[in-house]
Amino acid sequence: MNMTTANTARLLIKCEDKPGIVQAVSSFLYHQGANITALDQYATEAQGGRYFMRVEFELDHLESRKETLLKTFGTNVAERYEMQWRLAFVGDLKKVGILVSKVDHALLELLWRHARGTLPCEITHVVSNHEALRDSVEQFGIPFTVVNVTKENKVEAEAKINELMQGNDLLVLARYMQILSEEFVSKWPMQVINIHHSFLPAFVGANPYKQAHEKGVKLIGATAHYVTADLDQGPIIEQDVERVSHEYNVEQLRELGQDVERNVLARAVRWHLEDRIIVDGNKTVVF
Amino acid sequence: MNMTTANTARLLIKCEDKPGIVQAVSSFLYHQGANITALDQYATEAQGGRYFMRVEFELDHLESRKETLLKTFGTNVAERYEMQWRLAFVGDLKKVGILVSKVDHALLELLWRHARGTLPCEITHVVSNHEALRDSVEQFGIPFTVVNVTKENKVEAEAKINELMQGNDLLVLARYMQILSEEFVSKWPMQVINIHHSFLPAFVGANPYKQAHEKGVKLIGATAHYVTADLDQGPIIEQDVERVSHEYNVEQLRELGQDVERNVLARAVRWHLEDRIIVDGNKTVVF
Amino acid sequence: MNMTTANTARLLIKCEDKPGIVQAVSSFLYHQGANITALDQYATEAQGGRYFMRVEFELDHLESRKETLLKTFGTNVAERYEMQWRLAFVGDLKKVGILVSKVDHALLELLWRHARGTLPCEITHVVSNHEALRDSVEQFGIPFTVVNVTKENKVEAEAKINELMQGNDLLVLARYMQILSEEFVSKWPMQVINIHHSFLPAFVGANPYKQAHEKGVKLIGATAHYVTADLDQGPIIEQDVERVSHEYNVEQLRELGQDVERNVLARAVRWHLEDRIIVDGNKTVVF
Amino acid sequence: MNMTTANTARLLIKCEDKPGIVQAVSSFLYHQGANITALDQYATEAQGGRYFMRVEFELDHLESRKETLLKTFGTNVAERYEMQWRLAFVGDLKKVGILVSKVDHALLELLWRHARGTLPCEITHVVSNHEALRDSVEQFGIPFTVVNVTKENKVEAEAKINELMQGNDLLVLARYMQILSEEFVSKWPMQVINIHHSFLPAFVGANPYKQAHEKGVKLIGATAHYVTADLDQGPIIEQDVERVSHEYNVEQLRELGQDVERNVLARAVRWHLEDRIIVDGNKTVVF
Repeated sequence: MNMTTANTARLLIKCEDKPGIVQAVSSFLYHQGANITALDQYATEAQGGRYFMRVEFELDHLESRKETLLKTFGTNVAERYEMQWRLAFVGDLKKVGILVSKVDHALLELLWRHARGTLPCEITHVVSNHEALRDSVEQFGIPFTVVNVTKENKVEAEAKINELMQGNDLLVLARYMQILSEEFVSKWPMQVINIHHSFLPAFVGANPYKQAHEKGVKLIGATAHYVTADLDQGPIIEQDVERVSHEYNVEQLRELGQDVERNVLARAVRWHLEDRIIVDGNKTVVF
Repeated sequence: MNMTTANTARLLIKCEDKPGIVQAVSSFLYHQGANITALDQYATEAQGGRYFMRVEFELDHLESRKETLLKTFGTNVAERYEMQWRLAFVGDLKKVGILVSKVDHALLELLWRHARGTLPCEITHVVSNHEALRDSVEQFGIPFTVVNVTKENKVEAEAKINELMQGNDLLVLARYMQILSEEFVSKWPMQVINIHHSFLPAFVGANPYKQAHEKGVKLIGATAHYVTADLDQGPIIEQDVERVSHEYNVEQLRELGQDVERNVLARAVRWHLEDRIIVDGNKTVVF
Repeated sequence: MNMTTANTARLLIKCEDKPGIVQAVSSFLYHQGANITALDQYATEAQGGRYFMRVEFELDHLESRKETLLKTFGTNVAERYEMQWRLAFVGDLKKVGILVSKVDHALLELLWRHARGTLPCEITHVVSNHEALRDSVEQFGIPFTVVNVTKENKVEAEAKINELMQGNDLLVLARYMQILSEEFVSKWPMQVINIHHSFLPAFVGANPYKQAHEKGVKLIGATAHYVTADLDQGPIIEQDVERVSHEYNVEQLRELGQDVERNVLARAVRWHLEDRIIVDGNKTVVF
Repeated sequence: MNMTTANTARLLIKCEDKPGIVQAVSSFLYHQGANITALDQYATEAQGGRYFMRVEFELDHLESRKETLLKTFGTNVAERYEMQWRLAFVGDLKKVGILVSKVDHALLELLWRHARGTLPCEITHVVSNHEALRDSVEQFGIPFTVVNVTKENKVEAEAKINELMQGNDLLVLARYMQILSEEFVSKWPMQVINIHHSFLPAFVGANPYKQAHEKGVKLIGATAHYVTADLDQGPIIEQDVERVSHEYNVEQLRELGQDVERNVLARAVRWHLEDRIIVDGNKTVVF
């Protein structure tokens, strides 16, 4: 929950757990003159498991010191502990593209939060397989492009989308009702966030509200996850639920569910933008 | 949430939706001199669906008028609308038997709430396939019997349990780790409540917390449901969840989950005892 | 949760509790040929308290039968039980005016839900004491008028607002930062809904998030209530909270709180529009 | 959520925020041979505010190295940064005394969780101003003493309680209905946890459920806080709420509220026992 500035950076680390990591990282930053403003760590086991760390720090004149920082951290610390790591700079605003179909609630929540300054990114482009939401998007001053997708043109359509989205750091599927191919997904590893309208792993696949209604569940939910080649099986980022009763028909479940969906998706996207998420196999560590 | 007395009764009705049902039921009760203290209804469709109703009412000298009431409602109202119905008298305290294995949290929550007067029933007997919880049960003054269950003696063991439980209105599986046979279940239709330690239909079967941990869900849950021949598939009565993070190992999920389990089970049992539940196919209507 | 049509009406009743009310109301409707689609009742005491009832029903050719219905219910039923009552017709869409200052989240949530068809009303006008939100409102095709309010012109300003709002059934204060005078409020009894940015009665008055931060609470909340002459003391319609920690500064409490505020306000307005609320002294009955 | 052992210790630090603290602490621990298993920090401002830190670590042969550790951390690190600090050893089980009156739910929740191994402490003694709960306590094998408190004997009674409680690290007021004097409280600074049956600061003082009922709130809550000389005003540790409706009378609010109270109290006590709480003026930092 820290206030950040253009001099804020975040270091994300994944490695085998060994003694001395905190000391090594904090000493490095101290000798660079950095001030640590947030530090989170997690180890999967008491001893010898996988280790994850997120450090947020302030460093004067960061802009001119980025390269040195990247280089020296790599050679002085990361190599010694065989870390997988990345350094993110708050001043480098992330670029986000959105894919959507016809329903607008998830998209509008993102556009709206962005307009109010609570999603730290640049929304570069919205691509849809329908015309329906053009006005909603363009009134925010964001480019909107329709790419029709059919069984026949799927390969070309995805190539077109991929091309339009070049340069983005993140793609968000804000209720995009087309299944992305394994090939497409492989080009954007852990860079595509989807909102699924159920409490996964319950109700994978189509029509989750219908499935929920038939099952008679007393809570409905939504799940934001990274997209992998396995449909609805990627690492879960965030989930939430809302209480329902026998009185809700499918349509009413859907309407209530949309409020859950838009909040869950907005939280997941924000955490990604704030560099809070480290993927651990098929799971996420969210700091 | 009404205060009840020995003169309180509850009428539960299920039938095809037709105009005039409320009028017919309320006129009947009015002419008997009853005062309606709660009335809930639900229809699955705007017109022509299934109709469900729960009416709670007070009637002076109820004890001596039960038979007349049952008979006249049947002939004057229920037959006309082809209702499935039952009349429950608050003064006739329901009898409850509990089945448990070794973990005590769900059992103790029930015993404790009962001791404090918030579960309106008589707990007649606790049967377990282990000795472990004898002291915990007997200190509440409730009989405790061990019935060992093995692959070999399953038929005899269930016969023994069935015999011990005769006279009860409800059986509660408070984390009873044996699967009841189809034959046993068929003798207690919609009279056995189980607590499953997951948010069904996610994680059916064994070790749901292990499954949840492997999947990396961000919420864990519990589900109370009526037991049918289909394992973990009976009508859901109540569900709830608790937020977790990547930090929870399987043991910690289990510990947190137990708090959810005991509250969900206690609510489901209470609703059953208060005659709030009508089963509708594989779903419940909870008034 | 019923689906409604142009033939749907709702009867709201408040009176002294006496035997036979349900019977009298349901008989009346039955003989009119109406089909009851929802019925809720509540009595403050087991016997002799205040009684509240909401009945939703369908009646063919409702439009042409409104007057007869109103007249005959009055003479045949309401007078006998000395009821305070009203009959609302779903076909007569309620008219809503909104007052707002500079922050947009509560306003936009209403406009957005309205645009998506989940707030059954006509939003006729938005009045603000600032220019800031003109574009946000006008892009929804809704008239926007600025009425400046100062200490000196308060009487005239309120007269102007009152005039602009004539014909509305409900006024919503979507974070309107001016205190309405007792005189103004008296003209709109239980017709003005306000969203207060705290869990009332905690933190009445100005700067509730600052107060909450100083007090170190672990949950922040929002309260939607009818506006009366007593500031922040009118009947509460809905409340909700969100969990916070020591990490949140005042600005972050405000940002998180806005999500609670907009949902709480939207629910309260919807319940009012669906004729679910009966005011009982300084409290509400919400069916 | 880490698993702890007899070699686990926790270092709690409060000081002015300055660069290098993480580095200094982690270097110290590294050179002692400790393995950091959890690290949390918080600063009230981006620069120059108050700084709080909790470090959990494992150190082989901890028992024989405690004194050296305490001494060297003090001279090598704490003095340099003018830290207020303490070092807690998981192997030194905390001693807890409980004060209670007649209602048992909060007490039993603590005894029960303790019996199941989820409250890491020794419960040494329960003192009450009534006989009512003797059996409930003694069946857990815990000493129970009655100290009557009247207006006349209050000084002597508190002296008696103080004497009985000597040697404890924490006193828990599990619905103890006597107000402790300023003098008593001053002897146990931030060592007395109380459960207040409302969402403070709403409904301070007596009969909060009655106050909540009169106000018509839609959520009821409970607050666990450290006891200070100002009644109901000490630093808040944890709060939670439960949804209610107009249907709940005072008695039903109380019954539902008790479930919230016992969970909130249990969480607060556990966090204290796990050395997660640092008091910051009139607020708490809970790691």
